[in-house]
Amino acid sequence: MKERYFEDLNKGDRFQSETYKVSEDQIIEFAREFDPQPFHLDRAVADQTMFGALIASGWHTAAITMRLFVKTLNFAEGAIGLGVDELRWPTPVMPDDELRVEVQIIEIRESRSKPSHGVVRLGYVTTNQRGERVQTMFASALVPRRSE
Amino acid sequence: MKERYFEDLNKGDRFQSETYKVSEDQIIEFAREFDPQPFHLDRAVADQTMFGALIASGWHTAAITMRLFVKTLNFAEGAIGLGVDELRWPTPVMPDDELRVEVQIIEIRESRSKPSHGVVRLGYVTTNQRGERVQTMFASALVPRRSE
Repeated sequence: MKERYFEDLNKGDRFQSETYKVSEDQIIEFAREFDPQPFHLDRAVADQTMFGALIASGWHTAAITMRLFVKTLNFAEGAIGLGVDELRWPTPVMPDDELRVEVQIIEIRESRSKPSHGVVRLGYVTTNQRGERVQTMFASALVPRRSE
Repeated sequence: MKERYFEDLNKGDRFQSETYKVSEDQIIEFAREFDPQPFHLDRAVADQTMFGALIASGWHTAAITMRLFVKTLNFAEGAIGLGVDELRWPTPVMPDDELRVEVQIIEIRESRSKPSHGVVRLGYVTTNQRGERVQTMFASALVPRRSE
């Protein structure tokens, strides 16, 4: 797959990822390691909560979103995350959901401190197989420029 | 460990987590699954980047922060994340770093829509063994109230 650079991006560009199916086992495994709360770990307990089912940690949804983003944009040398704003999880992710991410270039400019890189502001929307938004966020990242 | 409820919290309260040591293998394993970029995956490549060493995905740092938070606050029935703002990674996490989290209650109020829960606004600071800030963020969560 072609590697992407700063020069390949324009304000307003949109990118659509492949899909990623998340299993019950993956939800439980992530939760055991990073977010050991009952509604992420145990189906019987989760059935009794306001969600009525086992749900993925929001941090798992965020990590899957990153995976889909990295594989879709495929920056040469990688993109370096500077920060994230307005990270929201409007709909919970449940076992066997198929997630996909749409990323839009909100702003793009050269880096003042690092001439080898540019700064992009990105808007992310992660949806499930019914088109419901499971995560939205804005992020800023340093992306590599082509050498002269 | 005692389970915590909404009623146990007051504005201004601070909580200090235990420490968590992150290994090179864990950094690489997380990156392979969720953030497969060269500076998270391969020490030789990472040595040539602006960081000069292998660094953890910011999403790995966020997930470790969640683990430390869950174990420190130990909410009865769990805390339900509503959203995160101003998530920043001022210093990269490197192999064998020992992380800890300090969480402060910024705001606290009853939930209008869910009488069984309260809403807390939390400020998080994750630091390494040298006291450098590796992550800061604000988050809102629903936490359970004691039954009458």
